[in-house]
Amino acid sequence: MPTETNEPLSIDDLKFDDSGLIPAVIQDHETLEVLMVAYMSRESLEKTIATGLTHFWSRSRQQFWKKGGTSGNLQRVKSIYTDICDRDTLVVRVEQVGGAACHEGYRSCFSLQLQDDATFAVVGEKVFDPETVYGSDAGAGSGQGNASRP
Amino acid sequence: MPTETNEPLSIDDLKFDDSGLIPAVIQDHETLEVLMVAYMSRESLEKTIATGLTHFWSRSRQQFWKKGGTSGNLQRVKSIYTDICDRDTLVVRVEQVGGAACHEGYRSCFSLQLQDDATFAVVGEKVFDPETVYGSDAGAGSGQGNASRP
Repeated sequence: MPTETNEPLSIDDLKFDDSGLIPAVIQDHETLEVLMVAYMSRESLEKTIATGLTHFWSRSRQQFWKKGGTSGNLQRVKSIYTDICDRDTLVVRVEQVGGAACHEGYRSCFSLQLQDDATFAVVGEKVFDPETVYGSDAGAGSGQGNASRP
Repeated sequence: MPTETNEPLSIDDLKFDDSGLIPAVIQDHETLEVLMVAYMSRESLEKTIATGLTHFWSRSRQQFWKKGGTSGNLQRVKSIYTDICDRDTLVVRVEQVGGAACHEGYRSCFSLQLQDDATFAVVGEKVFDPETVYGSDAGAGSGQGNASRP
């Protein structure tokens, strides 16, 4: 492995976990709002870099997916970062097409805020109706183990 | 489990992984820069809420840790969010005491940016010298499997 100071690091130096995945924090490139967190395989990261559009690996469905493949809410990649300490996490800044990253119709998946009474309240803005975009079962919990949906 | 619309959700409704952990994206509450990603156990989340200071679980050291416990670079919690889809990730907005979250001395751990030539370049601002804060071995890779250090 290259040293931290002498040789340039590449995606070969990223640390994928035992399942071959790396978490990716997806952030709006202008507002810096965190839109979602999902997981990339080496293949989905390479596809993300090659196409300039985010691609992930669904842990629950065990399949490769392109963000916005169904909804049209693509994410155009503006910049990709990793952590200098462990290189085991990515931050990807994107332009969110359609204004909503969350398959529940919210701009950000992180639309539940902890309140002083220890409950979570919805604080995000709902941009679209999931039923219109994904069909009538879209409002139910996805149980897919990642933040969004194609 | 409460339904999504009727009963308020609480931290009992968060989904911790098989190791009892939930990833937490730590974001500067003013600039919204992502400072680090680390993992919380139920205990460290409760301690974070109770004290208003971030606490984590180190996967490599298998121990509870308080951010800034050694360096003094505490994180004062401003708000906590979870994802409305799966409730398996947290976003915590903080005031970063001391101006640097990364134990390598950078403001953000995400100080390596992917370049057009497919290598990562350092883009972040180094705020402190790790040797001064942690001692002479601090510059080496932490291998601790999370983003920062006490």
